[in-house]
Amino acid sequence: MLDRNILQGRGFRNVTDGTSITGFQFELRNPNYRGTSASLLDGIDVIVDGEKWDSSVPAWTVQGRTYSFDELRASNDVRWQLDETVVVTVPKPGGLTVGVHDVKAVVYLRRPYFPPLVSRSAFELDGKGVIVPPVPESPLRFGVSTYSYAGDMYSSMGLEDVFADIADMGATGIEILGEGNISGYPSPTSAWVDQWHGLVDQYGLTPTNFGSWVDTAMWHDRELTAEEGARQIRMDLTLASQLGFTSIRPKFGVTSWELDPHPIWSEAVERSLDLATELDIIICPEIHSPTPIKHPVTQGYIDFIERTGASHFRLLVDTGIFQTHPADDGHEGVEIEEGKTRPAFMEPLNVPIDDLVEILPYVHFIQAKFFEVDDQLVDLHIPWDAIVPALLDAGWGGWLSSEYEGRRDVGRGRDQVRRQHALLRQMISQR
Amino acid sequence: MLDRNILQGRGFRNVTDGTSITGFQFELRNPNYRGTSASLLDGIDVIVDGEKWDSSVPAWTVQGRTYSFDELRASNDVRWQLDETVVVTVPKPGGLTVGVHDVKAVVYLRRPYFPPLVSRSAFELDGKGVIVPPVPESPLRFGVSTYSYAGDMYSSMGLEDVFADIADMGATGIEILGEGNISGYPSPTSAWVDQWHGLVDQYGLTPTNFGSWVDTAMWHDRELTAEEGARQIRMDLTLASQLGFTSIRPKFGVTSWELDPHPIWSEAVERSLDLATELDIIICPEIHSPTPIKHPVTQGYIDFIERTGASHFRLLVDTGIFQTHPADDGHEGVEIEEGKTRPAFMEPLNVPIDDLVEILPYVHFIQAKFFEVDDQLVDLHIPWDAIVPALLDAGWGGWLSSEYEGRRDVGRGRDQVRRQHALLRQMISQR
Repeated sequence: MLDRNILQGRGFRNVTDGTSITGFQFELRNPNYRGTSASLLDGIDVIVDGEKWDSSVPAWTVQGRTYSFDELRASNDVRWQLDETVVVTVPKPGGLTVGVHDVKAVVYLRRPYFPPLVSRSAFELDGKGVIVPPVPESPLRFGVSTYSYAGDMYSSMGLEDVFADIADMGATGIEILGEGNISGYPSPTSAWVDQWHGLVDQYGLTPTNFGSWVDTAMWHDRELTAEEGARQIRMDLTLASQLGFTSIRPKFGVTSWELDPHPIWSEAVERSLDLATELDIIICPEIHSPTPIKHPVTQGYIDFIERTGASHFRLLVDTGIFQTHPADDGHEGVEIEEGKTRPAFMEPLNVPIDDLVEILPYVHFIQAKFFEVDDQLVDLHIPWDAIVPALLDAGWGGWLSSEYEGRRDVGRGRDQVRRQHALLRQMISQR
Repeated sequence: MLDRNILQGRGFRNVTDGTSITGFQFELRNPNYRGTSASLLDGIDVIVDGEKWDSSVPAWTVQGRTYSFDELRASNDVRWQLDETVVVTVPKPGGLTVGVHDVKAVVYLRRPYFPPLVSRSAFELDGKGVIVPPVPESPLRFGVSTYSYAGDMYSSMGLEDVFADIADMGATGIEILGEGNISGYPSPTSAWVDQWHGLVDQYGLTPTNFGSWVDTAMWHDRELTAEEGARQIRMDLTLASQLGFTSIRPKFGVTSWELDPHPIWSEAVERSLDLATELDIIICPEIHSPTPIKHPVTQGYIDFIERTGASHFRLLVDTGIFQTHPADDGHEGVEIEEGKTRPAFMEPLNVPIDDLVEILPYVHFIQAKFFEVDDQLVDLHIPWDAIVPALLDAGWGGWLSSEYEGRRDVGRGRDQVRRQHALLRQMISQR
């Protein structure tokens, strides 16, 4: 699917001639209600952050070929289809800075079926574009969880759009929710599995973590047994392996406000470890707010690793535990007590970064949870300026997988993930 | 794609037990961020137009099988996937009246990974649903143009959604914009053509009219010749025939504020008539505001029919010419003069219905243009109470093809088309 906004989120980038940055480009969908001959295009005014380029200056890439303004008007058999984007390239030595830019433009399009004096139509558009720099050298790898796109999935974004968004910003890992993103879960058709591997190849992404659940309260009249829990984990391990993932995160039902996992957890995991080892998939419980690091639940997982010596059981840390300021954009389905702004379990947990450093040897995967990165690339809630240096100093290597959890306005997650990647990568390369 | 709103536009209907109406049903997408075992569903409160049904009363249809509340909670291996809808059926003898209804509901879903006291989550939803009655007996056939969905096409709606929306309300005709909806126009791949025929078969629709253009000002430095115009028409005739359409509407470039077609029109059409006859496709110029019926342009088309005796050249009437009140929801790309509310060519034209009756023998197709039908099924701009009786009294038979042209908010065209069909069908059956 295309973005509803004429200015597309994907494709906003600087361009080089091989040695230096010569300008920037962005993608547009057709602002009219029909496809059009490219010869009817009559230029585009571009204003980025107040700097203006005249309508005849930008180059157009239509159906894979690039044209100057004059070449475009003289073109034949070239079309801007409704279901295709064009790329507009604007000369600007040095390009645009990393981060968020205001983009305004006017597309001129001659429409011969309008009276001649008004047939040169002006389609105004505006939006924000995010320049995401390449992934800098470091032991950190960049991925994205489909959870970031929860507001858009299946209503304006298909699975291929997830791959395309991630690849467009130069990230390389894709994390999914097994019970969310696998059509026909837990038994996808072989056609679906083939399509999955096709997308992995086409976009050059690495499947990272497979979010799974052990719904201990699956039935209202009794709880799952440890063997039933193990069966769920082993099923997800098998499916994750079939799709190329290297870890699963079983989210157990909980029994308290502190999110104590249901007591079957350890036996269910133990009964799954042989299969995890055989498939070489790490089972990762999630350390998630309101459970901090110095807490019996987290300590219980670490004790489990030490007691069993398991090579395939490690921690997944959700960076929401480091949150310093409250985010009140809401969780669907959560009722809030009268007189309170948020449920107690959504208060910022503010876990000290030193606690993270202490357990890093046990950490396999980091979900880079966040709620909002503003136009100046400042994260309003998560202290990346403490987290990122700690990871680098400790030499921790592994995935940072974006998990946007702010407002679910159409397209907001997609824009926010680009901002987070710009912020994190710039922070690493400026060290 | 699914509707972004939890309450889906499709699937809202009365249900019968074979002899009488026993209730109504609606479709929902999953309000949570992951798919869920159906056993975790815990009922749904439903309030329609203020009438309330308790959460345990509605039946659920999940993955094709229907369950009572108790059966659902005891179910195993049944899931509500993120990319699937469920159907909720509510008992109500006699069902809901034709037209627009306020629907509020609360879906209860147990989420074992939340603290027990809050794990029964309440997902509230609300929206409007439109009950569309079956097509009544009459010579009028009901279709929809993809133009109605211009705000959603390719950003939240694919071609299959168009077919599904049309079929869901019991309409049988699909009209497309050739240069808008054929991927790779004018040379779709054979895979695309196969997919088209597959959708036609699957949804049981009849391709009706194929909107085409003759862009006489395609190049900025010269105009199309008559033979070039004819080549365009013949190409569209061939493509339309390949896809099963029975008419094309070539929209010629115009030369005046009155929308006089470019003078090549008649020669270009004449050079295409043999092919049109051979393929049995009617070429239909469009009578569109601001051109009324009693006008040299319209008369020119009628003269052409009489002069050439052509069996395959007939009129297409856009009901925008009968507009009685202004609609100011805007046309993208049209600039409005300072101090004016709308361009002159958008003033209501208010063509007398008697003028339509006079030319009906020449009319092949009617585009049922409209801008807004309100919650009481009143069209605010188009006088259907004069148009419909005139068509029925004259015994005119043919397609009424919905062409929504109001605001392009997400999903608005889809809802409005259902309203228009409810309005028109009720009007016919109440005569």
